[in-house]
Amino acid sequence: MGRVIIPEIEAILDKEFKVLDHGYVILVDYMGGDESIIQAARVSYGKGTKKLSDDRGLIRYLMRHDHTTPFEMVELKFHCKLPIFVAREWIRHRTANVNEYSLRYSEPEGDFYIPEAGQIGFQSKDNKQGRSLQEVPEELKAKVQRYMKEISEEAFKKYQELNQAGIAREMARMLLPVNLYTRWYWKIDLHNLFHFLRLRIDPRAQYEIRVYAEVMAEITKKIAPLAYEAFEDYKLSSITLSKLEVEALDTVLEGENVDEVCENVGFRKGRELNEFKEKLEILLKKEKKLVS
Amino acid sequence: MGRVIIPEIEAILDKEFKVLDHGYVILVDYMGGDESIIQAARVSYGKGTKKLSDDRGLIRYLMRHDHTTPFEMVELKFHCKLPIFVAREWIRHRTANVNEYSLRYSEPEGDFYIPEAGQIGFQSKDNKQGRSLQEVPEELKAKVQRYMKEISEEAFKKYQELNQAGIAREMARMLLPVNLYTRWYWKIDLHNLFHFLRLRIDPRAQYEIRVYAEVMAEITKKIAPLAYEAFEDYKLSSITLSKLEVEALDTVLEGENVDEVCENVGFRKGRELNEFKEKLEILLKKEKKLVS
Amino acid sequence: MGRVIIPEIEAILDKEFKVLDHGYVILVDYMGGDESIIQAARVSYGKGTKKLSDDRGLIRYLMRHDHTTPFEMVELKFHCKLPIFVAREWIRHRTANVNEYSLRYSEPEGDFYIPEAGQIGFQSKDNKQGRSLQEVPEELKAKVQRYMKEISEEAFKKYQELNQAGIAREMARMLLPVNLYTRWYWKIDLHNLFHFLRLRIDPRAQYEIRVYAEVMAEITKKIAPLAYEAFEDYKLSSITLSKLEVEALDTVLEGENVDEVCENVGFRKGRELNEFKEKLEILLKKEKKLVS
Amino acid sequence: MGRVIIPEIEAILDKEFKVLDHGYVILVDYMGGDESIIQAARVSYGKGTKKLSDDRGLIRYLMRHDHTTPFEMVELKFHCKLPIFVAREWIRHRTANVNEYSLRYSEPEGDFYIPEAGQIGFQSKDNKQGRSLQEVPEELKAKVQRYMKEISEEAFKKYQELNQAGIAREMARMLLPVNLYTRWYWKIDLHNLFHFLRLRIDPRAQYEIRVYAEVMAEITKKIAPLAYEAFEDYKLSSITLSKLEVEALDTVLEGENVDEVCENVGFRKGRELNEFKEKLEILLKKEKKLVS
Repeated sequence: MGRVIIPEIEAILDKEFKVLDHGYVILVDYMGGDESIIQAARVSYGKGTKKLSDDRGLIRYLMRHDHTTPFEMVELKFHCKLPIFVAREWIRHRTANVNEYSLRYSEPEGDFYIPEAGQIGFQSKDNKQGRSLQEVPEELKAKVQRYMKEISEEAFKKYQELNQAGIAREMARMLLPVNLYTRWYWKIDLHNLFHFLRLRIDPRAQYEIRVYAEVMAEITKKIAPLAYEAFEDYKLSSITLSKLEVEALDTVLEGENVDEVCENVGFRKGRELNEFKEKLEILLKKEKKLVS
Repeated sequence: MGRVIIPEIEAILDKEFKVLDHGYVILVDYMGGDESIIQAARVSYGKGTKKLSDDRGLIRYLMRHDHTTPFEMVELKFHCKLPIFVAREWIRHRTANVNEYSLRYSEPEGDFYIPEAGQIGFQSKDNKQGRSLQEVPEELKAKVQRYMKEISEEAFKKYQELNQAGIAREMARMLLPVNLYTRWYWKIDLHNLFHFLRLRIDPRAQYEIRVYAEVMAEITKKIAPLAYEAFEDYKLSSITLSKLEVEALDTVLEGENVDEVCENVGFRKGRELNEFKEKLEILLKKEKKLVS
Repeated sequence: MGRVIIPEIEAILDKEFKVLDHGYVILVDYMGGDESIIQAARVSYGKGTKKLSDDRGLIRYLMRHDHTTPFEMVELKFHCKLPIFVAREWIRHRTANVNEYSLRYSEPEGDFYIPEAGQIGFQSKDNKQGRSLQEVPEELKAKVQRYMKEISEEAFKKYQELNQAGIAREMARMLLPVNLYTRWYWKIDLHNLFHFLRLRIDPRAQYEIRVYAEVMAEITKKIAPLAYEAFEDYKLSSITLSKLEVEALDTVLEGENVDEVCENVGFRKGRELNEFKEKLEILLKKEKKLVS
Repeated sequence: MGRVIIPEIEAILDKEFKVLDHGYVILVDYMGGDESIIQAARVSYGKGTKKLSDDRGLIRYLMRHDHTTPFEMVELKFHCKLPIFVAREWIRHRTANVNEYSLRYSEPEGDFYIPEAGQIGFQSKDNKQGRSLQEVPEELKAKVQRYMKEISEEAFKKYQELNQAGIAREMARMLLPVNLYTRWYWKIDLHNLFHFLRLRIDPRAQYEIRVYAEVMAEITKKIAPLAYEAFEDYKLSSITLSKLEVEALDTVLEGENVDEVCENVGFRKGRELNEFKEKLEILLKKEKKLVS
């Protein structure tokens, strides 16, 4: 079959896609595409795949049934510039290869992330981990930005002074804040990249990592369009109903009040019920009469 | 907090649970249980978890939102005896620690798996990988068993003869069939065990590995009952609707014929449609009129 | 065989071992010990191990020949408190399970690492990543400490102010420096722990991570004394001569000058030669005449 | 920098390299080469690498000090045909991506490995896992081959008969011997490939897997010649002396008898002593007087 060359991708190799104020994502190299998934699947499922007449059908089948290994046959390598606090979340995805800029060997390059006013938000009340973007007064937004700049500049100035004085880099760096930008090469296979994207494109992911995931998703779409479509259909935009929710749905469709229902099937009134209602809204949008 | 000791489990440590004709599963050791999941989650989510008033609610929340790392804090170690062809599927779960009986170092112990008549089936027509248990004539069943016995005995006899003659074990073993039993220690964390169980308890999994998974599921249920309940609710018995299926559901609920629907939303007539219909049957059991 | 209980270890479970100014290492739980390594090895090597009459001999054999899987059968779980910059190096060891305190969910606990004067050093000249502990004037040491304290206090004050004003935690935390302490549960098997220890006990590792590794090494020694002894003998304190160095040694033993030798065999004058000389000093300590 | 294209490798992409009687190794795709290792290392070690004037020096430094992550930036994908018993050893290397021909989906292709007469050996006496190639009488060799052929043919005939009769493939395959050939795609990064090669090129590895490793080593040498040279020098052909052996060497160089020495330093008379003597022979070849 030979190696997979995707002209649309060759055109963007080594191209810098800007993210946040000083960050970027660059696709440095890739190996394979939709064809490699098909190739690998056909060795596994052999004659069994003959009747799946087309590639799209086979890729959808693999995605639907969590036959994940063929997706591992595609590999992508990125060069990213990102704030340390983003890198700290990102690195938790262990099934990837990483080479990061080291502050033991080198001085920091000196860029710090300062959020745009539009991204500054209050602590979300119903989402313990997130922010709400409403209502922050302009002056408070300005203060957030000013504080970040002050600490960044002060810390960098002190770093440089200690560095000039000959203090070890591994030591001087201890006072640098986590909005400092770092850089790395990050290489991952498509299956694990999909897992990363699913968690990091999610609205509950922190904005500052989500924007990286979104750029990478666009690139991935071009490398393996059929796989990405299947990923979007079955993973990103799918709805999962738990066993208890399936039972509850049944009663709801029979006309019973949804708030009464949850206790009977055994789930909790607060968060679980709210999440179930959100699903119902999507599932039964034309059947609102049943739900309300 | 100290270590987690579960009396119900202490009682079955080192106990042999029979599987198939000569196989077994033994729980050799374990580390942690529901409490360890809670403990780990509380360090991650800190004050954020205070309002999740009880442990069950927290564990359900973790499972529902794929916060998988707290489940990795529980570890189980099994000693299993299983046919080589089962071991070959099993070993594909890479995130585990394994020590297997080696035929380079030792002679085979000499047990071979011969399926019970009740498990002998024809190739399934709609499931390329499975068997259908209907209608195999008794004499064909007997032939299957006889053939397996003949090859097993003949191969073992020849092995022993070559072994007696001093031929290297790593060489003589080459003629042994894959129904030979092997043994191993297999150690895995709870998150990865759940993943294994989800794939191997599934009706599409081969019977001969499913029976092992079922025994291990029972043991797991005792080690971490809350986690297992959440796993069953959100993973094992949940139903996932793809983006296209959500669209299709909408039209079906409006009364449109399900066979017409699928083309409009963009999925294929064969397998995909059938799987969608199966889901509809479960979801709308009381609403059959809409579907039929 | 039943589970392994090591009285000496039971006594230190949940005990806090202090590290640095505010950090600690706690052994929370463990599974297995030397016996579990033996147990797993005997299933792999079966009758082949009979002649290795004792456990110590078998464990040494496993370590010497990189039969690493039996060591994976032992599992350890730690609770650690450590500065973020240490956590960033530590997390690079991917084969472990981690649950870390999250600054998206919770406020920082407010401890910052300030190095002791005795640990403050200049950038090492011959080791690009390290520090030299000689000669830093007292007043420069004091300045390093003062700068760290100033940035820590200033950043924490600003964090608290933004937090009071209701700014999202995931946002306010961006200005915190990497000497802030975090906490995590960290679970790993013995083979991968040895790998971690080998890299982090090394004199080239940064002091602030080395002190954690040293405490964990002491604990490990008690959990699996025979394995630790073998690890120390074959990995930690062993000397590896490259193919080129073996050739060079030959000429050196014949009396040739070591500086002349390296060019002939093909390695470089700078670092490589110096490292070779260091090895020679250890290997031929009583044969100095040959070397000098 | 753009993607790495290695003309010598492009010429052998998709080329079948024969191994054993029916097996092969095909390089299907690759990503990166020596340049990618350098690229990744320079981001990690930044200005720290400036003084390592050339690429060879830097790659040797990385290999010598186990800075393994830059080697993970190169990826290779192979298509292999290999006997099941070889696949069973091979798959133990977990850090790789695999898609294997499935006997649940497809019928076996029908090739079985029959060893050449020259490879048939007796059980080795001093190596519990290996074979000795001396002295096997011709007629015994012929018998080994005949037995393998008989079982292979008989099993395959019975398989086909059951298959014709409609018995499920996942069931009929249970009687096939482990010398049946299977096929797979196997993708791995260079660091983990080196680990695989180190263990499988070793004379103690079984011949039937070693021949695959040797072909792959030749291919790897072309993809990353500098990295391979460093791997050979520092890993493949290096000699490691344990702490106890370093002590023993000292006394040996002073003229003491090697057999007396080992007891003093604390290692065992049998295997450990013999392995030490083998190392001495290599290290001190020109200094035999000292040893004997």
